[in-house]
Amino acid sequence: MKFELSQEFLDQLVLDIETHNNDSISGQISQLHPADIADVMGNLSTDQAKYIYELLDEELAAESLMELDEEFREQLLKLFSPEEIAEQVDNLDSDDAADLLGELDEDEIDEVIAQMEDREHASEVTELLNYDEDTAGGLMQSEFMTANWNWPVDKALVELRKQAEQVEKVYSIYIVDDEQHLKGILSLKQLLFASPKTPIKDIYKEKDLRVAKTHDSSEDVVQMMEKYDLVSIPVVDRQNKLVGRITIDDVVDVIREEAEKDFQMASGISTNVESSAGVLKHTRSRLPWIIVGLVGGVASSQIIQGYEGQITLNPSLAFFIPLIASTAGNVGVQSSAIIVQGLASKDFQFNGIMKQLGKEALIGLLVGAICSAFIFGVLYFLNGDMNLGITVSASLFMVVIIAAVLGAFVPLILNKVKIDPALATGPFITTANDIIGLTIYFIVAYFVYF
Amino acid sequence: MKFELSQEFLDQLVLDIETHNNDSISGQISQLHPADIADVMGNLSTDQAKYIYELLDEELAAESLMELDEEFREQLLKLFSPEEIAEQVDNLDSDDAADLLGELDEDEIDEVIAQMEDREHASEVTELLNYDEDTAGGLMQSEFMTANWNWPVDKALVELRKQAEQVEKVYSIYIVDDEQHLKGILSLKQLLFASPKTPIKDIYKEKDLRVAKTHDSSEDVVQMMEKYDLVSIPVVDRQNKLVGRITIDDVVDVIREEAEKDFQMASGISTNVESSAGVLKHTRSRLPWIIVGLVGGVASSQIIQGYEGQITLNPSLAFFIPLIASTAGNVGVQSSAIIVQGLASKDFQFNGIMKQLGKEALIGLLVGAICSAFIFGVLYFLNGDMNLGITVSASLFMVVIIAAVLGAFVPLILNKVKIDPALATGPFITTANDIIGLTIYFIVAYFVYF
Repeated sequence: MKFELSQEFLDQLVLDIETHNNDSISGQISQLHPADIADVMGNLSTDQAKYIYELLDEELAAESLMELDEEFREQLLKLFSPEEIAEQVDNLDSDDAADLLGELDEDEIDEVIAQMEDREHASEVTELLNYDEDTAGGLMQSEFMTANWNWPVDKALVELRKQAEQVEKVYSIYIVDDEQHLKGILSLKQLLFASPKTPIKDIYKEKDLRVAKTHDSSEDVVQMMEKYDLVSIPVVDRQNKLVGRITIDDVVDVIREEAEKDFQMASGISTNVESSAGVLKHTRSRLPWIIVGLVGGVASSQIIQGYEGQITLNPSLAFFIPLIASTAGNVGVQSSAIIVQGLASKDFQFNGIMKQLGKEALIGLLVGAICSAFIFGVLYFLNGDMNLGITVSASLFMVVIIAAVLGAFVPLILNKVKIDPALATGPFITTANDIIGLTIYFIVAYFVYF
Repeated sequence: MKFELSQEFLDQLVLDIETHNNDSISGQISQLHPADIADVMGNLSTDQAKYIYELLDEELAAESLMELDEEFREQLLKLFSPEEIAEQVDNLDSDDAADLLGELDEDEIDEVIAQMEDREHASEVTELLNYDEDTAGGLMQSEFMTANWNWPVDKALVELRKQAEQVEKVYSIYIVDDEQHLKGILSLKQLLFASPKTPIKDIYKEKDLRVAKTHDSSEDVVQMMEKYDLVSIPVVDRQNKLVGRITIDDVVDVIREEAEKDFQMASGISTNVESSAGVLKHTRSRLPWIIVGLVGGVASSQIIQGYEGQITLNPSLAFFIPLIASTAGNVGVQSSAIIVQGLASKDFQFNGIMKQLGKEALIGLLVGAICSAFIFGVLYFLNGDMNLGITVSASLFMVVIIAAVLGAFVPLILNKVKIDPALATGPFITTANDIIGLTIYFIVAYFVYF
């Protein structure tokens, strides 16, 4: 029942492909879930993947295609003619179809749509292509089950049975009036246990109706579905007409992508790249923040140069440059990460910026006190130089507090001016804190030594 | 229909609480969704929250409690007697009940369970408490709908109607034999359109049956449900007996928590803290990696001290210490983040470690070449010192390559020995690369200058 991909399985499959042993391939592949088939294909060359793909029945082939890595799918689709792609699109749910088309060039999209056999499906998909992919309209599918609120239960059952052929996963029935305006939701459970002659009007649920509008941001949709534990949500247009639904599996994908994007952003990677992407793509996504860091490094060098005289007199001051800079960076990254997360989960809804900054200052005070006591002890033990100990520990104390506050301040401000605060974590904070930290260090040294 | 929490709403509510205007409070609160009530309560003091809580009807009160921040709920529960907690637990689904009990002390748990009215529920909940919270058993609930495979559809409907009262959200019916062994799944859609006399045996789906075992890790459950787009999954014990189900909303929570944990780990925060946690808790979670960074800083200082002679002769060498150290750190964090993500999404299933390291080396080569050309240009323009330009740019080139490879190597190795690779990102990599980077820098300087 459970499929585990193994190297042996892949080796056997490659052998079967080379020897055109189609029966053996079909026997091994056609019973698998599309997600498993995609796993298999993702571990082959595109030519091999296409070979397998052509042995699958239409619907399974189309679904497996959608489960592939975007990167790999793009490569694979280059081997397909527009007719072949159109065939796949015909077999996909409207949201997947639109996603797939969205990955093609503008010309190709038109060509594929022209080649589609199911014209009604073609116009549904065309409709969906109009929506920005980061909106509810971009996430929704046109397949859903709907019943008129004037129908009795038995009539609804007859109508729904027809609709059910088009809709793979049914969680609820959307109740509409004669003008297709959304009135409420009926769960399958309610329908299952209702008596046949009851009018739908009397049993559907109006209370707690959660609806997405086509132009709502996908972030808002995710938040609503997560907060209210919904598995699907109806989507209406500006006139409150029911036009689609969004299911939880798509929302889970969005959550996953957002989390990956945040993680990468915090690590200083500027565009979302799959780990499987090519070397050039990786290089492009990593360079920008590295260059920013370099510019920061040059700025640091200018600051230190300003204190060249001090270093010449006390070369040991140079020893602790990395300690000051890296601690400032580390502390800043921590506090900005906490703020970014708090903002994302709306924890600070009614707390002012000042309150958060005050809290970070307090944490910085504690961390700073402990760190500077620690480092004073270590330095005294290592070389007993009182002046150096005082310089490093006193400046560390100040640097930690400032880094904590600045790390909190930047994302709070970015959020205020509607820039993604996750941008602030990582290299930006590190670089800013390096510069500030070193400046404080040399100023303190000036006062201690002269 | 849609509720938006506002400061005015909160102010009014606080006023109502102070004047004991219970009718007004109930009127405003009792129509809200538990998640919204929790939002309201989370913005009040625990005493105020408890006041509101007591005005809610039992079930709504219990559900709102479960929607609260863990932190806040803990505080609030301190105001409750064991009897009061038992009353809540009686009203919760078994999984929520077990989660709530899990937050109490051992003694308290026993006392609460002893006070529960619904004895059957009490033993279900007690059963669930045996499972580790990071396993399928720890995620599952005992409420689900089940039908014997020997029943005809009409008999099943009668039985299911009884069960339906206990089960809030129904996605599928689990089909069992006489010994409660799981045989397959029946969707509500199939049941809805089946004719009354058909035996269940003839319509249920056996193919593609995905099952979790009680001792499966929650990570595996998440991965399975995400991969196969499941909204619920049955859980069986070691004898394949059906004992529970896990629903997608709990899995979404796990995904969210995992993502937050990874993000915090990468930012050098050692234990998972809510942004709303107290100053002491934050300080405790942030100190460990800062101290590690300090120790690294001391190590760096020792390395630089070893090259004191060089600095005395060429103080300008000290200027670029932060640039070398921070670039090494930045590059290392980027490559470790990519590896950590690739490991999490199983992208490297069949790629050897060597292949990944080779790729990172190649990326490092490109990034390093561009960075060192850039910095050579900048330095030449700034002070025209050829020796310094060569030292900084040549060592930067090497440092970047090594940092990229090391950043990839550490998480790959940690993963091999089954330690969470996310531990490797952040301060650890930064610190290691600081030390290595500076060593290379001074060695290069030695060869250039002497």
